[in-house]
Amino acid sequence: MKVIKDSVHDHIQVDGVARDLLDTPALQRLRNIRQLGTVSLVYPSANHTRFEHSLGVYHLACEGLEHLNVEGRQAERVHAAALLHDVGHGPFSHNIESLTHRRTGRYHDEVHGLLAEGSVGDVLRDHDLEPAAVADLVAGEGRFGQLVSGELDVDRMDYLVRDAHHTGVPYGTIDHGRLVRELTFADGELVLDEGNVQTAESLLVARALMNPTVYSHSVARISKAMLRRAAERLLESPDADVDAETLQWMDDHDLIAALRSCDATSDFSRRLDHRDLFKRAVWAELDDVPGGIIEADHGAIREFEREISARADVDRSRVILDVPSRPSMTESTTRVMVNGEIRPLGQQSPLVEALRAAQYSQWRLGVYSPPDLRDRVGRAAVEVLGLDIDGALVSEVRDGLDATLDQFVE
Amino acid sequence: MKVIKDSVHDHIQVDGVARDLLDTPALQRLRNIRQLGTVSLVYPSANHTRFEHSLGVYHLACEGLEHLNVEGRQAERVHAAALLHDVGHGPFSHNIESLTHRRTGRYHDEVHGLLAEGSVGDVLRDHDLEPAAVADLVAGEGRFGQLVSGELDVDRMDYLVRDAHHTGVPYGTIDHGRLVRELTFADGELVLDEGNVQTAESLLVARALMNPTVYSHSVARISKAMLRRAAERLLESPDADVDAETLQWMDDHDLIAALRSCDATSDFSRRLDHRDLFKRAVWAELDDVPGGIIEADHGAIREFEREISARADVDRSRVILDVPSRPSMTESTTRVMVNGEIRPLGQQSPLVEALRAAQYSQWRLGVYSPPDLRDRVGRAAVEVLGLDIDGALVSEVRDGLDATLDQFVE
Amino acid sequence: MKVIKDSVHDHIQVDGVARDLLDTPALQRLRNIRQLGTVSLVYPSANHTRFEHSLGVYHLACEGLEHLNVEGRQAERVHAAALLHDVGHGPFSHNIESLTHRRTGRYHDEVHGLLAEGSVGDVLRDHDLEPAAVADLVAGEGRFGQLVSGELDVDRMDYLVRDAHHTGVPYGTIDHGRLVRELTFADGELVLDEGNVQTAESLLVARALMNPTVYSHSVARISKAMLRRAAERLLESPDADVDAETLQWMDDHDLIAALRSCDATSDFSRRLDHRDLFKRAVWAELDDVPGGIIEADHGAIREFEREISARADVDRSRVILDVPSRPSMTESTTRVMVNGEIRPLGQQSPLVEALRAAQYSQWRLGVYSPPDLRDRVGRAAVEVLGLDIDGALVSEVRDGLDATLDQFVE
Amino acid sequence: MKVIKDSVHDHIQVDGVARDLLDTPALQRLRNIRQLGTVSLVYPSANHTRFEHSLGVYHLACEGLEHLNVEGRQAERVHAAALLHDVGHGPFSHNIESLTHRRTGRYHDEVHGLLAEGSVGDVLRDHDLEPAAVADLVAGEGRFGQLVSGELDVDRMDYLVRDAHHTGVPYGTIDHGRLVRELTFADGELVLDEGNVQTAESLLVARALMNPTVYSHSVARISKAMLRRAAERLLESPDADVDAETLQWMDDHDLIAALRSCDATSDFSRRLDHRDLFKRAVWAELDDVPGGIIEADHGAIREFEREISARADVDRSRVILDVPSRPSMTESTTRVMVNGEIRPLGQQSPLVEALRAAQYSQWRLGVYSPPDLRDRVGRAAVEVLGLDIDGALVSEVRDGLDATLDQFVE
Repeated sequence: MKVIKDSVHDHIQVDGVARDLLDTPALQRLRNIRQLGTVSLVYPSANHTRFEHSLGVYHLACEGLEHLNVEGRQAERVHAAALLHDVGHGPFSHNIESLTHRRTGRYHDEVHGLLAEGSVGDVLRDHDLEPAAVADLVAGEGRFGQLVSGELDVDRMDYLVRDAHHTGVPYGTIDHGRLVRELTFADGELVLDEGNVQTAESLLVARALMNPTVYSHSVARISKAMLRRAAERLLESPDADVDAETLQWMDDHDLIAALRSCDATSDFSRRLDHRDLFKRAVWAELDDVPGGIIEADHGAIREFEREISARADVDRSRVILDVPSRPSMTESTTRVMVNGEIRPLGQQSPLVEALRAAQYSQWRLGVYSPPDLRDRVGRAAVEVLGLDIDGALVSEVRDGLDATLDQFVE
Repeated sequence: MKVIKDSVHDHIQVDGVARDLLDTPALQRLRNIRQLGTVSLVYPSANHTRFEHSLGVYHLACEGLEHLNVEGRQAERVHAAALLHDVGHGPFSHNIESLTHRRTGRYHDEVHGLLAEGSVGDVLRDHDLEPAAVADLVAGEGRFGQLVSGELDVDRMDYLVRDAHHTGVPYGTIDHGRLVRELTFADGELVLDEGNVQTAESLLVARALMNPTVYSHSVARISKAMLRRAAERLLESPDADVDAETLQWMDDHDLIAALRSCDATSDFSRRLDHRDLFKRAVWAELDDVPGGIIEADHGAIREFEREISARADVDRSRVILDVPSRPSMTESTTRVMVNGEIRPLGQQSPLVEALRAAQYSQWRLGVYSPPDLRDRVGRAAVEVLGLDIDGALVSEVRDGLDATLDQFVE
Repeated sequence: MKVIKDSVHDHIQVDGVARDLLDTPALQRLRNIRQLGTVSLVYPSANHTRFEHSLGVYHLACEGLEHLNVEGRQAERVHAAALLHDVGHGPFSHNIESLTHRRTGRYHDEVHGLLAEGSVGDVLRDHDLEPAAVADLVAGEGRFGQLVSGELDVDRMDYLVRDAHHTGVPYGTIDHGRLVRELTFADGELVLDEGNVQTAESLLVARALMNPTVYSHSVARISKAMLRRAAERLLESPDADVDAETLQWMDDHDLIAALRSCDATSDFSRRLDHRDLFKRAVWAELDDVPGGIIEADHGAIREFEREISARADVDRSRVILDVPSRPSMTESTTRVMVNGEIRPLGQQSPLVEALRAAQYSQWRLGVYSPPDLRDRVGRAAVEVLGLDIDGALVSEVRDGLDATLDQFVE
Repeated sequence: MKVIKDSVHDHIQVDGVARDLLDTPALQRLRNIRQLGTVSLVYPSANHTRFEHSLGVYHLACEGLEHLNVEGRQAERVHAAALLHDVGHGPFSHNIESLTHRRTGRYHDEVHGLLAEGSVGDVLRDHDLEPAAVADLVAGEGRFGQLVSGELDVDRMDYLVRDAHHTGVPYGTIDHGRLVRELTFADGELVLDEGNVQTAESLLVARALMNPTVYSHSVARISKAMLRRAAERLLESPDADVDAETLQWMDDHDLIAALRSCDATSDFSRRLDHRDLFKRAVWAELDDVPGGIIEADHGAIREFEREISARADVDRSRVILDVPSRPSMTESTTRVMVNGEIRPLGQQSPLVEALRAAQYSQWRLGVYSPPDLRDRVGRAAVEVLGLDIDGALVSEVRDGLDATLDQFVE
């Protein structure tokens, strides 16, 4: 048994298959992938890694399974999945995932191949665990998949608390001790037991407040967009000779070094290193953006950028168009027991609907450019994209927002 | 200058008028009044007092005023009001306030008389402060009254964080550091500056989650109802010779000692001391309760209790009917700056409406009795009150709830 | 099973015999006894009680036993002892223990009688536990007595962390998680396993720093001495009709109410209520005090007070002489494993001896009186006690100390 | 003004010269240098950087200066020095400092050249600050140099608390709020005011406990030694073409990338990446090591390694000899006010001497090698170094230690 000291959960006991997985290169690699990517450019203390997060998820999974009275092989399978759930991440976690997905067709939680290979596969098989079964859990499949990846999963419980601890933003401070205690299975579904409507609400609320404040903070979005663009240029640069598969298995150090040494990306790299970032030329609400733009694919986005830069008469590399996907309308799948029956949280709590509405009101399309080009790029973007904003107003509103940002961000 | 160590704000500097007010008996008395009254019967570590809370409110007021660039006499007036805002509380804070209000016509924040008298009045006048002006601030009046008592007041900021620290329930963990920094005046109104929609939401959410989990926890409500009933019997008992004014200025020790030594209240007192509490005989939702009952005044409530006890054939003292007032529909007055204009938070955030709806769904009418009489009392209450519940179901649902409560409460 | 939310250990699971003991009046009484007595006059947030501390000690005992692989009856016996270890405390915990001990011959941890009686005795016997065996553990006897009461006991681990949490003084923040994990038995002794010299040192250091800063803070000592004197007068007052046995079983509310209502004690009571405390007339180091005074018994101390008040020409009740017992030279019994052998910590760590020396340098004899009488009382005390201080210097040094205290205390 | 959210100090206001320095590449570079280097291989959450630490030191300097009533140019000079005090660090902070010092002759706090150049120099001069004067403060010179670098400096206050927060080891939790408040100048020296003997002791104790537990944890030492050796090979490798000056200005990403891509270092690099570390072949106490070895210079150390590897018949790169410098006997310079006079803490507190003695007892010489070569290397080292240990016993003791380490470290 190993005992590891963690800044969030204090002591984490690592045992059985987890003990052996810990020493695999696939897991050790996560030490070098920051949990929140470029968020550390906003919150300087947010340098925690996927490694410690994976330990935390494993720890909460152990606690949850204990309360659910699950033991033996089944428990070991979940332990392995919890510890391994993030080994598929590329450098900077989610930051460049859309790029690698476009090229490799794989998301970070599709790890069937990965878990079957090398030392991870060996360890799993040594412990009589089928790699494919563990990979299924990572993908959220099966009865216990919900515990690893679902609306009540231990992944979210850990990252909310951990991100709060490391950013200093208290909104993620949920009662994870109570959450893991109150999990139960009813009709094969993972639900929260009687008396936990507020417990469930608090989890949703924590995420809803952390989202705009941390994960989608405008400066985090800008720097993420710059990093993604830089990585794309790296893939396209003949000098660099980096393909998507190689990129996918880099860690943060590799990617940063590659961006620094490649001519096509050194400007982005310098800007990220010196925190000399692009600024918002446009920051538009959902209602002001034509539907076609929201649904545009990557090729169309690049084409828009070309048009905007042409109209503004600036170099193509000076314009980034950042269009988040439309807020999803998928039903919240959180279930709670109320008076002896399983109910969807949305039926029980008016907060669910409100938080969904809040997501809409927080959605923003961004066009970013170097500070000195903002006015030209902003006006050009309003025209090219057909935004329902008076081009003349763009800079005014934007300056107000930036003054605000100047406080409360680094 | 004095520096006081506080479990929540670390070091609190006390200076000027506050330094002198600290030594008055009116303020020292608050050391002996628990902040959350009977909540400590649910959360055993919640023994913090109005004294430390008052210091915390004073501390946050100082910080807020500093950020608002308010100094001199105006600042001192607010300092005094912040420190004194709770000196009007009776024993067990809000727990018996409805009782003393019925008899004295005064709420705890009506302190004009109190601040003019005795050593408090002397100290204020020594510092050239008009007691009436300070009392106005305590009542939330005037430009700075909003900082002492309003939707964005430092009172709430302190109690949420403090109650979280002492109960162990994390939902109250707001970002008070940011809140006091972001206060600004616009058109004479206290508002949150640009970029703080989530900051404002987080304050509302914190209260919305603390309410059912802590402040209105069913066991806290039951014990509060028992205490209030005991205090009422004390006033009515000829032996005790305690009138409402005397009761009002007791501290917790006085009231507990009085209840223990008076024959008419010793049973309640023993039950509270030994945590041998009444249980819920009925726990009904808003829709199941006839409007007339919700609007009933104290006399009518006592009459209902008489009828229920008669029909159940139990002693009158064995039945307590606990009807919270109807969830209030008052407009949230929190204002935030958005794109340069002052907006009511409710217009900007769908959460405001949802939290109001949540209040409705959490409202409960309670009928409490000793455990062994619950079935009789429950059925009788359903009939007498004309509740829209099948009497036969009362005990079933209730038992489910109690099993839940048994976890997660002391 | 019950789950209780605690401000320090988060969730505490209470089960088996502990679950049933929780509902006994003997345990519920501890809700009304503050853990640190008059320390709350220095640190206003230190209002935590023996009840929550008892739960914490029980919780750490459970964790320790789990790591020691102790189960069944033996574990239940320790659980009971941990939960009950403080039921023998009188009002204000240790504050008046010397007084009640002089009159009843019993310290708070001599609970053989108490555990055999009433509902506690019934519960223990219902769970097949011999009350005397549990009382032995409380007294620190037997193999597992060391875990309940000894140098490595869970009592100390809980109170250091809890007192730090509630006072705001961080010195008590030990690594209790590691301590309970690293306990092991060797040759029948409870020791810390290999690699824990620093773990052991940190526990000693925490106590050594908390002592002068919190437990023996001069204002805490003054108010404790006033309370003890008031309680003594209460016992001596024919009107009050309170004997030592009655006093012993009061809780804080009872004692405060009694002191308020008794003529002989109302002055002390008013002073404590209003924090209008005596001040130091003398504060003398060990080397400046004749040996005979340090060894003086209670009768002699009272006689000295009489002489001092006579010489200073003040009323006898205006002088309190406070002589702590000589720093004890008992060997530290903490044992640690080093390179496979059990070693006394003192042999391994130079800190043990240094902390003992520090205790000497912190020892102070105090003479307290109302502020306006300090000079007269101070000079008289120097003469009567034969202190090796120039009487003329007393007030000067003292005023320096008080100016310091004025900061950093309430 | 900028407000930055910090995980330790919550909100940090950055203003004046600090605001402008923040945007310089020299400061932004610190984002990519981990505060504790390889300690994250022991405590996985210890990924905090010199950047956030620098902000924290700046913040505490501001607080300290406010309490000392220092304003204007003098304050700005100290602000700049506090923020810049670590810009001279190379990759992995102190880990390879002995190596770069040997080759460049410069330690990280010798920044006269650095502060005069480039954007940092420009910013300082724009604010009318002389770079040399700021560099003097960084070196601890002058009246205010003690606040930036001395026994009571804000550097130490920040790192103890921050390292505790991020490792999870609570020993560093000092009362920094009190420390900065209690600083005062007496006879031109920075001292702690009356009543702060314990405050001063707590700072010493915190460091004394953090040292063996965190900073000099054996696994941190081993991985640091491996990193240092790898960096030395990098400098010596003709392929790599890296000189000491280049190495000095790398950040962590650069160095890791360089080690990965250079043939001569890729083995060390792989071991560090996979946490496949050398183990202790010898771990010897001060008394068992001949004096000549302790005083040996780098050349002699390398020669010993050659001899050991020859005698053990293993490749030279498989042996690392790690000899810390002799515990220093320099007088503690902490001064405290006691009864109106300045006293060295060592005179007032027996702890100072004890902590120095503890340093001796914790000193260890280490010989490290791959696990499978330990026995051979261990025996050879005992002979070559003339250690006063029975070669046969080395492995036995060592295995006991490793079993312990296996718990409580990652």
